[in-house]
Amino acid sequence: MVDILHRVGIKAPVDAVYKALATRDGVAAWWTKDTQGESKVGGELRFRFSAGGVEIGGVEVKVVELDPSKQVLWQVIGGPDEWIGTKIGWELRQEGEYAIVLFKHQGWKEPVEFMHHCSTKWATFLLSLKALVETGKGAPAPRDVKIDSWD
Amino acid sequence: MVDILHRVGIKAPVDAVYKALATRDGVAAWWTKDTQGESKVGGELRFRFSAGGVEIGGVEVKVVELDPSKQVLWQVIGGPDEWIGTKIGWELRQEGEYAIVLFKHQGWKEPVEFMHHCSTKWATFLLSLKALVETGKGAPAPRDVKIDSWD
Repeated sequence: MVDILHRVGIKAPVDAVYKALATRDGVAAWWTKDTQGESKVGGELRFRFSAGGVEIGGVEVKVVELDPSKQVLWQVIGGPDEWIGTKIGWELRQEGEYAIVLFKHQGWKEPVEFMHHCSTKWATFLLSLKALVETGKGAPAPRDVKIDSWD
Repeated sequence: MVDILHRVGIKAPVDAVYKALATRDGVAAWWTKDTQGESKVGGELRFRFSAGGVEIGGVEVKVVELDPSKQVLWQVIGGPDEWIGTKIGWELRQEGEYAIVLFKHQGWKEPVEFMHHCSTKWATFLLSLKALVETGKGAPAPRDVKIDSWD
């Protein structure tokens, strides 16, 4: 089992970061605009991604933990084969003027090339989250940062 | 042992990407301006990073492999404790109009918080490499993208 790990520091109260991770409208403002479902423990969220107006992929998750200002954890129940059963989580804490975000996308079976892609892509989305909370404007799909030929 | 993995696709001939990875001046244009030493197999490269005019860290590597347009591999011989003995490598191939870059920073003993930071930071430097080759202008330190309180 191999994991994707990231860390960003966001100049904001940790509550503001939590809100951007724990609510549907929050996630839609930094990951993908096409976010549907209910962000509550046991609820499901559905994400769609498109490029040039064509849908290129989707992900469905079950919300496993919502611990205010401390943690958000999802389990992937639909999407790319390699994602099924993996867990996506954010641990939060305040450190001075920074909200520190530790991100983990855990439980990949193999370090396939697609995992390399997703690792870089998650970094860009975490910087989108940082921009959203610090400036009010994120870069969710379809306005996301393009990194390679799979975007 | 845990690894940092990334993938970017650069719209350019793979030779141009190789040159940016395999030469001192190339690396200085996307990782850190303060790059010294000789990029030849068995040679050593020294990198220094500063913030606000103050040096905040350095890294030394031995060049292990230089396989034109295919691979560059370094072994870390100086720098942060967690980096000593790790290997940093890029595998390259042409795929249509894209040069595909698979990046690995391998051999971390533990998935410590500093590894999360370095994972995100490497993503920003790989996008700096992409920008350098595609547009002629990278974002090497000290003009690097800041991601958290350790930057």
